[in-house]
Amino acid sequence: MELNGVEIEDTYAEAFPIKIARVLITGATKRWAQVAASEATGFGTSVIMCPAEAGIERFASPSETPDGRPGVYIQICTFGYKALDEQLLERIGQCVLTAPTTAVFNGLPEAEKQFNIGFKLKFFADGTESETEIAGKKVFKIPIMEGDFLAEENIGGISGIAGGNFFIFGDSQMSALTAAEAAVDAIAELEGCITPFPGGIVASGSKSGANKYAFMKATANEKFCPSIKDKVEGTEIPADVNSVYEIVINGIDEESIKKAMKIGIETAVTVPGVKKITAGNYGGKLGKYQFKLHELF
Amino acid sequence: MELNGVEIEDTYAEAFPIKIARVLITGATKRWAQVAASEATGFGTSVIMCPAEAGIERFASPSETPDGRPGVYIQICTFGYKALDEQLLERIGQCVLTAPTTAVFNGLPEAEKQFNIGFKLKFFADGTESETEIAGKKVFKIPIMEGDFLAEENIGGISGIAGGNFFIFGDSQMSALTAAEAAVDAIAELEGCITPFPGGIVASGSKSGANKYAFMKATANEKFCPSIKDKVEGTEIPADVNSVYEIVINGIDEESIKKAMKIGIETAVTVPGVKKITAGNYGGKLGKYQFKLHELF
Amino acid sequence: MELNGVEIEDTYAEAFPIKIARVLITGATKRWAQVAASEATGFGTSVIMCPAEAGIERFASPSETPDGRPGVYIQICTFGYKALDEQLLERIGQCVLTAPTTAVFNGLPEAEKQFNIGFKLKFFADGTESETEIAGKKVFKIPIMEGDFLAEENIGGISGIAGGNFFIFGDSQMSALTAAEAAVDAIAELEGCITPFPGGIVASGSKSGANKYAFMKATANEKFCPSIKDKVEGTEIPADVNSVYEIVINGIDEESIKKAMKIGIETAVTVPGVKKITAGNYGGKLGKYQFKLHELF
Amino acid sequence: MELNGVEIEDTYAEAFPIKIARVLITGATKRWAQVAASEATGFGTSVIMCPAEAGIERFASPSETPDGRPGVYIQICTFGYKALDEQLLERIGQCVLTAPTTAVFNGLPEAEKQFNIGFKLKFFADGTESETEIAGKKVFKIPIMEGDFLAEENIGGISGIAGGNFFIFGDSQMSALTAAEAAVDAIAELEGCITPFPGGIVASGSKSGANKYAFMKATANEKFCPSIKDKVEGTEIPADVNSVYEIVINGIDEESIKKAMKIGIETAVTVPGVKKITAGNYGGKLGKYQFKLHELF
Repeated sequence: MELNGVEIEDTYAEAFPIKIARVLITGATKRWAQVAASEATGFGTSVIMCPAEAGIERFASPSETPDGRPGVYIQICTFGYKALDEQLLERIGQCVLTAPTTAVFNGLPEAEKQFNIGFKLKFFADGTESETEIAGKKVFKIPIMEGDFLAEENIGGISGIAGGNFFIFGDSQMSALTAAEAAVDAIAELEGCITPFPGGIVASGSKSGANKYAFMKATANEKFCPSIKDKVEGTEIPADVNSVYEIVINGIDEESIKKAMKIGIETAVTVPGVKKITAGNYGGKLGKYQFKLHELF
Repeated sequence: MELNGVEIEDTYAEAFPIKIARVLITGATKRWAQVAASEATGFGTSVIMCPAEAGIERFASPSETPDGRPGVYIQICTFGYKALDEQLLERIGQCVLTAPTTAVFNGLPEAEKQFNIGFKLKFFADGTESETEIAGKKVFKIPIMEGDFLAEENIGGISGIAGGNFFIFGDSQMSALTAAEAAVDAIAELEGCITPFPGGIVASGSKSGANKYAFMKATANEKFCPSIKDKVEGTEIPADVNSVYEIVINGIDEESIKKAMKIGIETAVTVPGVKKITAGNYGGKLGKYQFKLHELF
Repeated sequence: MELNGVEIEDTYAEAFPIKIARVLITGATKRWAQVAASEATGFGTSVIMCPAEAGIERFASPSETPDGRPGVYIQICTFGYKALDEQLLERIGQCVLTAPTTAVFNGLPEAEKQFNIGFKLKFFADGTESETEIAGKKVFKIPIMEGDFLAEENIGGISGIAGGNFFIFGDSQMSALTAAEAAVDAIAELEGCITPFPGGIVASGSKSGANKYAFMKATANEKFCPSIKDKVEGTEIPADVNSVYEIVINGIDEESIKKAMKIGIETAVTVPGVKKITAGNYGGKLGKYQFKLHELF
Repeated sequence: MELNGVEIEDTYAEAFPIKIARVLITGATKRWAQVAASEATGFGTSVIMCPAEAGIERFASPSETPDGRPGVYIQICTFGYKALDEQLLERIGQCVLTAPTTAVFNGLPEAEKQFNIGFKLKFFADGTESETEIAGKKVFKIPIMEGDFLAEENIGGISGIAGGNFFIFGDSQMSALTAAEAAVDAIAELEGCITPFPGGIVASGSKSGANKYAFMKATANEKFCPSIKDKVEGTEIPADVNSVYEIVINGIDEESIKKAMKIGIETAVTVPGVKKITAGNYGGKLGKYQFKLHELF
């Protein structure tokens, strides 16, 4: 199968269940909402060694937020609800409560699982807190140095999906990278998914475990490493390919992941120098979700 | 004492020793270096509940970096060297090694304490790594999907200072916030210090412990909370002040903190609506450093 | 009438007919489309002394552009079609054709009036140009140093509206400015309108003509100048107001202007320190359009 | 000659005299200074069809500006002083006076030629203006809606240089473009020069006149167009090159241009996929300055 003259390999992305909380951060301006969101979602690429996977989902227009201000939806993801509860408290308490002009609202009010983060944050007010209502939502008002911080009582979490992905093969590093950036631009417009790696892009996709260093949980996937393609038996890198980037997508459901993979791939193949699109999987042995590339289109 | 018509209170900022590592991240472009630096320093405002305090120190011109590419100096800070070693490995391994086009160099090559982060990262290559030299520095070359990741063998750490600070009192929230942003703009040009909070600014300065909720390690400093000034006995908020922001500064030595406090305050007072500058301390009981505001000028 | 506790004056914005062309610029990434759009719409605040009024309307998702790449819609506005034809050729020829990775498409393909800008740009190819089709559109392919520049044959223009506006009164300069920025954030999401001034904001609203310097076409509207409110008879500035910003909106029809004024005002009044919203008019003597503030809500 | 394994052709950039004015724009924050600077330097790539060539030179620290605020130096360039006078008045009057929080100072106070732009701008105040002094400079205070706009009496201009340049040949378009961006990152740190094209980069370098369309002043330099290299006799594009970008540099003197070309080229060759660096000239027939590439290193 080809798209814009680029081969789409007949394979699938293998993905895993993960717990996801969704938080709406509003600010006096879009920029201040974004400053808080960036801090709150940093150090959040992969749960291999980060305390969470996290990212900005999309901007929210003032017309859709409870307080009528510009906002940003973020997602925070961990392998269990206990860790998620902790990460929510730590990341919102340290990176949003402390950030200029922000307020926090529940990004998944319909979810069965709710974390009472706003309730816990109110203790920071040391007795000066109060309760109020904004657009029908129960909100705590916490006096701080800048004025009042507003936090909705609960933040919802659900069982979502981590590790949706596709790989971009390029004739040069910068072709592949530009295609990756364009794919992330396209995915950034969507509802329900994040690309948690730096700039949304993975430069160093990994395999589970190791061939040589048994103490490593994850190591470079040498079959996808162009600089050693001549030395690796069974390399997956064609002669005319010199760089590969992976886009990793977490999302609240299968539909979100599929939409992101589809528009991401369609946009990536518009960049000159992209040679092939494929995806990462473990032969179906590890993850419960399989996203077949050919079925996206 | 007045500066540009603004009262500078006769007080001091009380600060603490902290361990600081300094890392130079280079990228194909300034923007890619910055993307990695933002991810690597996120979730890093305060060690109260973040695994480290971290921030971007300054940009590095291609003329001064070992590989001749644009770069960014970051600082990562923890209360001990063991935690620093772990944070360096986790943050560089997960947020820089994975980021497009980056390389990592030692930002404190002269320091006595050195962490062999590059040596540890090489195991990701699972046996395909090699050693090379760039500008006289020992560097590991780690084949990854985008090409090769280069990491200098060691990253240096020293005993530095956390919690340099000053407070900006404004007639309105946005006056104080704009002054805070201008102060951060000025400090961002300096060598040796970071402002680890979101956008460099603290909206919710805290006191140690609590009056009411004894289980809390830190709570809002109610004497500096304008929205409750009428209810708090001994409030520090004058009648014409409606908002306060704090700038917190970590730095590698006292000189760095002083320079940052000086230029930060000088720039803050150029913004209309700033009413007073003061600083936060614990009566000298907790921190070993005291930065007297009046001695800065 | 009040909105979020802020007085909305019972007045109207007076606006004028203007000719508007709408151009879709696509790029390899959103960022490159934006770089070209910024250059092409610069020096374009007011036709008083700029060759055109111009601005970025909104981003375009890869899913909606003819070439499947990220894009930006811009508007270019002049008082007549002849000037518009010239400005289109100059701004696209000098600021988009020269910009990395861009292509240009017709943003108003249904308009009766069409300017054959793509046809004219092809002469830059000096005989090496060719014709092609993208998504059913006639496009010229112009070989240039980076590769090929693609330009659709025509760019459409219509008779639109200039000078939709509202004024934000703030207790301090930074309150009013932050409210103005938030309003621009909200308007930036909309279809069909631009805010052509720097950052979308006017710091120095003017009156037609002059009291003292008869040779001036436009001068400061002294009744809205807070720093001289005590000296100006009939000042419109209340005692508690110390700064005013104006948002000027151009749009392709009345509906676009109304939507922008509505969401802009609703967002502005969420910022603390905003005291009043009003609008600018000339008593109905100059412009053919009147947008009554109270009818927006 | 080779640099980092990339051929530097033994040729020279041919450049021309141009008149240059240098303006310091300060703002409440760095960002607001930049917003005004971007608007004021837009539609300013080439005097072929733009009213001026213009660009941001560098940021100015609060410690070096007359009003102690963050600033941006811009340059505006035209072929004569009369046009420069007009462009200064129009661009500062329409794009800086109107921009939030800005002030304007003389960026070339030592120059013999001075334009009394501040004097002219004061008429906008319609009689409410006053004179003051900031850091020993004569400044007009112009009451406007946001507060007061401050403009120094004069802006200096000199005879500088336009058209310093170098060409980056890449194996793919994105290799060449990333190298161009990195070069611009490096040049942006320097004093005295600008890169006036969009993002600092030229995608469509031109030759003077035309082969086929005699009515054109400038057309594509077909010998440097990779997409038609197989059809153009005497093409300068090697078999392994698929894209070329040009960096054009204007500067206040020869030293500025040389420094920019040197660091720009040194940075460009660090990007993988760059195949060759050359420069554009007209055989020495048109411009009075020649910058030999080999003499830069």
